[in-house]
Amino acid sequence: MTFRIRTDGDSRLYEQIYEHIKGEIRSGKLLFGERLPSTRSLAEYLQVARSTVDYAYAQLLSEGYIESRPCKGYFVCSVEELLQLDGDMGAYSGDPGEGAARAGRDAARTRQNPPWAGRDAARAGQSQSGTSRQAFDPGYAVDFSPYDIDMAGFPFGVWKKITKNVLTFANSDLFAKGEAQGDYELRRTISRYLHSSRGADCRPEQIIVGAGNDYLLLLLEKILGPRTRIAMENPTYRQSYRIFGSFAYTIVTVDMDEHGMRADKLEQADVSAAYVMPSHQFPTGTVMPIGRRMELLKWADGGADRYLIEDDYDSEFRFRGKPIPALLASDRHGKVIYIGTFSKAIAPAIRVSFMVLPQPLLEKYEAECSFYSCTVSRIDQSVLNEFIGEGYFERHLNKMRKIYRAKHDLLLECLADMGEEFRVSGENAGLHLLLTAENGLSERELVQRGADRGVRVYGLSESMVEEAPDSRTVLLGFGGVSTDGIRKGLGLLKEAWKGGNM
Amino acid sequence: MTFRIRTDGDSRLYEQIYEHIKGEIRSGKLLFGERLPSTRSLAEYLQVARSTVDYAYAQLLSEGYIESRPCKGYFVCSVEELLQLDGDMGAYSGDPGEGAARAGRDAARTRQNPPWAGRDAARAGQSQSGTSRQAFDPGYAVDFSPYDIDMAGFPFGVWKKITKNVLTFANSDLFAKGEAQGDYELRRTISRYLHSSRGADCRPEQIIVGAGNDYLLLLLEKILGPRTRIAMENPTYRQSYRIFGSFAYTIVTVDMDEHGMRADKLEQADVSAAYVMPSHQFPTGTVMPIGRRMELLKWADGGADRYLIEDDYDSEFRFRGKPIPALLASDRHGKVIYIGTFSKAIAPAIRVSFMVLPQPLLEKYEAECSFYSCTVSRIDQSVLNEFIGEGYFERHLNKMRKIYRAKHDLLLECLADMGEEFRVSGENAGLHLLLTAENGLSERELVQRGADRGVRVYGLSESMVEEAPDSRTVLLGFGGVSTDGIRKGLGLLKEAWKGGNM
Repeated sequence: MTFRIRTDGDSRLYEQIYEHIKGEIRSGKLLFGERLPSTRSLAEYLQVARSTVDYAYAQLLSEGYIESRPCKGYFVCSVEELLQLDGDMGAYSGDPGEGAARAGRDAARTRQNPPWAGRDAARAGQSQSGTSRQAFDPGYAVDFSPYDIDMAGFPFGVWKKITKNVLTFANSDLFAKGEAQGDYELRRTISRYLHSSRGADCRPEQIIVGAGNDYLLLLLEKILGPRTRIAMENPTYRQSYRIFGSFAYTIVTVDMDEHGMRADKLEQADVSAAYVMPSHQFPTGTVMPIGRRMELLKWADGGADRYLIEDDYDSEFRFRGKPIPALLASDRHGKVIYIGTFSKAIAPAIRVSFMVLPQPLLEKYEAECSFYSCTVSRIDQSVLNEFIGEGYFERHLNKMRKIYRAKHDLLLECLADMGEEFRVSGENAGLHLLLTAENGLSERELVQRGADRGVRVYGLSESMVEEAPDSRTVLLGFGGVSTDGIRKGLGLLKEAWKGGNM
Repeated sequence: MTFRIRTDGDSRLYEQIYEHIKGEIRSGKLLFGERLPSTRSLAEYLQVARSTVDYAYAQLLSEGYIESRPCKGYFVCSVEELLQLDGDMGAYSGDPGEGAARAGRDAARTRQNPPWAGRDAARAGQSQSGTSRQAFDPGYAVDFSPYDIDMAGFPFGVWKKITKNVLTFANSDLFAKGEAQGDYELRRTISRYLHSSRGADCRPEQIIVGAGNDYLLLLLEKILGPRTRIAMENPTYRQSYRIFGSFAYTIVTVDMDEHGMRADKLEQADVSAAYVMPSHQFPTGTVMPIGRRMELLKWADGGADRYLIEDDYDSEFRFRGKPIPALLASDRHGKVIYIGTFSKAIAPAIRVSFMVLPQPLLEKYEAECSFYSCTVSRIDQSVLNEFIGEGYFERHLNKMRKIYRAKHDLLLECLADMGEEFRVSGENAGLHLLLTAENGLSERELVQRGADRGVRVYGLSESMVEEAPDSRTVLLGFGGVSTDGIRKGLGLLKEAWKGGNM
């Protein structure tokens, strides 16, 4: 493996390494099972800091291109599906996968306009709408809700300024009825945002703006048809489960492993749609590796009516490595229905979500649903459009990432000395992590003992589709908790859980 | 018939007369078929201007309590259903029907707090959301769209001021997620508004706030169940027809006569829900008289699962007499689902509608749909709440009523000399009227000849559920047309249609 590190340009070293190796794997130059050089030897060879290579490898690990075998090193994962599906990739020039593949051959050209390069990554950000519960439950001194966000970070001043501007320059058009899919300008801004931050390309025409994910799923019911059989993971995001449950849908739970929904089980499930959160599964925090993504896409390819619903609810808050590209970015044949939201990255009160429809479904939407009036006012759309377009969103996300990273690191620090009795997982991204008791305490006991001391934690089984009597896992969210709250809460929890149930 | 005119207090003379006679009819003191005194003799007897009695009689006529027989005078209509349904009326103290009935016996007490007295009537106002098309079609010099409103009247200044205030005093709560049904304060304001302007009483707990009528109908589908058989009039409001059509509903069209949907036909239709616009049917402009309302309510009473969906889309714009009370105001047994909107009375961009659910459906909503997040942001809810609560809405409506009345009168004036060849109908309320050609021109010819001269009029058959090849009727909306536009447009239409097709 040879390549030259460029010191000019604005791409960071670790990104060059990451892109190069990814390109080699995707183009088949590095084969399944091949061992990569150790981080030390590659760092020496490239004359870069070892941490730079560590960083690149960590990103490749997260995305599932390579795996780490203890005491043996790093090996290329199986991505055979990738090669088959990439056959007709040429047409999708903006695709990050292709960009990466090309990077190996023509690094300079690709780097000029990387589809989700590091400096744009800061723009990343959508989130689960409608998930946060009523603000603060006075019954608890500390509430580790996995649904809350840090509202103190909301950019009041900017939001007020933009709103005032929009109203000042508004003409009566802005108070008239807008397009059913949402204002074209906002859709164009969203499509650019998806390109730069999520590595995904779509036309503004494919985007439907709506007041929250729940509403968009209601529309989707009309588009997919009421009798859809839909696959969901277990555990999964409860809100979506309830929404689908209120449809005439048949929900089939499909087993998941450490890579997410199992494609082989999906095949057996006899469904036409599968709901997944590849960038950060809720609640487990699993990041779906590229191999599994390709398997799911291949499944979708196996039937004209098969679709993957990608709920990309909090991809912007990732604490290790670069953002994981959207599944939509790997979609070659119009198989991914992408749902993003601004309710979590900005504020739940910003009732704006959006859905990207592949062509066949867009045609169905146009024929059967395009007469539904848009649920977001043009004023709100204009404010959001300016907030993103003028760079405020990017700055806001940078600020929030710092705030969340500090909370995240503090929480891990506080958890460090519980190592023996508790196992932490899902901690690389998002606004919560999972804690599994290995001292005999059940989920119910963890929750109850916390509550007895005024600390609220959330049982994993709340997200389970089926009963989970053996659960020993709780979710600890830190988005809406202050740093003092995290310290205090963890102190109380340690007392509460001390000694376990041995 | 004897009663004393009070000259003290703030109720107008014609209202006292109207309330008194209505009370006599509802309490059975005046019976079906009885002849009322002529307006002249009653005016002499009461020592009031004849126009005052005319006004009172006109209102009773509009609401269907009395009818006029040419050359014979005014007679009491059949309201036998009324008496049966009113059996348990005592419990509903705020009801206008009861208020009116009591007025006969205890006028002073009732007048102290009339549920939809004249001075509050100015507050009236909701409208069809999502009806206006894309602003102005450049292909037409004048567009008599029945869906457009006068956007020049939008209270920019006030809206801006309130928004600024709301954002200035906003704390982070306002950016957090609100209640699924909408903020309690707004719901309380809406319930007061319904009481004072629409004569209808409901608790804030019964109200669900949503981003437009289309969205609320989507929720209603979940509440009523997907397999509902629903009755609609023909012609009816096209948007609702399309929305219901996108459900798994079976739509049954039920014949209408000059009073609206026929109750006897409804009985035969084997449906569980009926969609009506009793205050002002779109497109015919029919105001459903009280007798027919009672018949419909009786039909609903005949089955536990039967409901009437009242779309009260533009009741605030009435040009003769007082506002017609809502059907909800006569509902004794929780049979009316009421839908109102602010999109027409304020601006289409104000994406706020609301739905009032009767108790059994409220329970269904709570069990099956209350997890759907509210589609209106808390900021928008707060602005609207202040707009209504601080009296701006009332003032806005007063202003708009004047503007629309002027346009309405001008349009009628321009139409006056077409009397021989055209018949005007549905002209007492709302923002459009109907024009039927009696000179041989078909609807298609009316529309086409108008278009040839750059004037857009709308065929009645656009609102027809079934084909209507014999239609000779077009709709002329005046909400979004300037007074100059009305003059110019009518001038062009007269030329276009001259001579007809004889």
